Amino acid sequence: MNPNKIVEALKKYNNFIITAHINLEGDAIGSVLAMKSLLDKLGKDSRIVVPEAVPEIYSKIRGIDAIGTEIPSDVKYDALVALDCTSAKRIENIAQYANENKLIIINVDHHASNMNFGDVNWVEPEASSAGEMLYDIFKAASIEIDMLAAEHLYIAIMTDTGSFRYTNTTPHVFRVAAELLEKGVDPAELYDALYSNRTLDNIRLLSKALGTIKVDPGGKIAWAVLDLPLLEGSGYNKGDLDGFIDYPRSIRDVEVAILFTQIAAGVVKVSMRSNTDLDVNKVASAFGGGGHIKASGCTLTGELNDIIERVIDETKRYFL
Amino acid sequence: MNPNKIVEALKKYNNFIITAHINLEGDAIGSVLAMKSLLDKLGKDSRIVVPEAVPEIYSKIRGIDAIGTEIPSDVKYDALVALDCTSAKRIENIAQYANENKLIIINVDHHASNMNFGDVNWVEPEASSAGEMLYDIFKAASIEIDMLAAEHLYIAIMTDTGSFRYTNTTPHVFRVAAELLEKGVDPAELYDALYSNRTLDNIRLLSKALGTIKVDPGGKIAWAVLDLPLLEGSGYNKGDLDGFIDYPRSIRDVEVAILFTQIAAGVVKVSMRSNTDLDVNKVASAFGGGGHIKASGCTLTGELNDIIERVIDETKRYFL
Repeated sequence: MNPNKIVEALKKYNNFIITAHINLEGDAIGSVLAMKSLLDKLGKDSRIVVPEAVPEIYSKIRGIDAIGTEIPSDVKYDALVALDCTSAKRIENIAQYANENKLIIINVDHHASNMNFGDVNWVEPEASSAGEMLYDIFKAASIEIDMLAAEHLYIAIMTDTGSFRYTNTTPHVFRVAAELLEKGVDPAELYDALYSNRTLDNIRLLSKALGTIKVDPGGKIAWAVLDLPLLEGSGYNKGDLDGFIDYPRSIRDVEVAILFTQIAAGVVKVSMRSNTDLDVNKVASAFGGGGHIKASGCTLTGELNDIIERVIDETKRYFL
Repeated sequence: MNPNKIVEALKKYNNFIITAHINLEGDAIGSVLAMKSLLDKLGKDSRIVVPEAVPEIYSKIRGIDAIGTEIPSDVKYDALVALDCTSAKRIENIAQYANENKLIIINVDHHASNMNFGDVNWVEPEASSAGEMLYDIFKAASIEIDMLAAEHLYIAIMTDTGSFRYTNTTPHVFRVAAELLEKGVDPAELYDALYSNRTLDNIRLLSKALGTIKVDPGGKIAWAVLDLPLLEGSGYNKGDLDGFIDYPRSIRDVEVAILFTQIAAGVVKVSMRSNTDLDVNKVASAFGGGGHIKASGCTLTGELNDIIERVIDETKRYFL
């Protein structure tokens, strides 16, 4: 269970599809791009194919055009490299294609919940990101990390550690970041390329969303409610609310932050974050959802105010 | 001009006052606390005295109670260590005390604009923070960095690099951070202690402030206007708007962000940030203010809308 096993598998095959999960974010995108650099340097043919179009906010990443959504049919593929994916379900039609065409599946992921769905699996829950694992694969393969690969690895690590502020930030993460800077990475430029990309509409949406935040009388639960009228009046795009839950979460003494997003009439997506040992996975599971101790979610149908009340009541049951 | 010179001076004297600049922030606070640890381990007597009370948002920092605002009169001091201060003016009455009592002044700072006001000066504009320089002083003195000193150094570096996202983030910064984590620093805990400390009033203020953001028709200047009615209706406290200018600055293609804060009737504080090579120091200087190429400010008297128009017109003159 180490990077050498992955290097061995990569050397064995010749034509690869590289993929990552739906709801593409920085770690998935940085990792597929870095994996393509690695396979190029190993003299392999590879194509990056993901289950959905790259969100507009990632459009400034150098080399992003290498990512497609259709599987080119000009070659016969041997293997699929799935990065940052917990299960085959999260790569949708590409998993189906891999099955139908009997591709060898190479699975590299840092989520403890990974299903080990590959023929070759390397799952490392201690890693901050798939990007950090990719760095270890470059080292194990003795492949030089060039400037562009360094940028992609940095983007993966920076986004999945929340710019080095989440609990997954380790000494190894910082040492890898130091080395990537020595390869020419400009940390401020990459941060701005990803996070200084707002529109005025996005700012207006954030302003309105912040106005909905409430705190329960005990001071331990904070929540925001994005109902359909608010969202529809704001030219809402997918990804516009990424990171929004950090605002209720940042209120002093708050243990659980909840975001209620009415994604359609009668359908409410509930996202939960825990600041303490309170296990929001248990709360979400009570409603048929799930996730991790500190970050979970579920989707409920019904009347918005009723859902808010039920979720908050359920949350209160888990206070330690 | 290196840390050895500072270590030599610290070893030479016995009774120290440690201080930092007004408008206390993370780097100043982390640095004075780390310097006290260092002097303790060198067997010296020292007191931390700063020109103003520690803002409430820093109250969760371990060991913060060692910082006072009155100079204890029970000892005769030999020397003053000024950290993160560009000039004696920024330590106010403490500089006056040092002059009157003929204290040796030891000046350690990372600002290029430092006036070399000390008897011993170490100014290192390449350093991200005074905290990073303190780390080098610990190393030069061969003093073990214990867990608490590691926390203080980490707070200094994290806050002055904007959690490792500003241009001052270097390989050395990351390597120091890695080592501090190995001393036991919990990066997520320290981030939350400093930045997850909002009140609901603060969120409401942010919501309203975001609602004032405008972008000029060319798309290159974004500004927000905090007038007296908005501020007074929001239970505004000093420090509540720290980092607020990052919002207009984060709009795609914006080169200059400006924050107009009406601090009293007829008095407007103007803060400017540049995302490009446009020199906002020149803009601020035109109004009698100043600062750096990328961050400057001035204070103007007059009618709010008139000031907004004059500053935006002046800014447009400097587009490259």
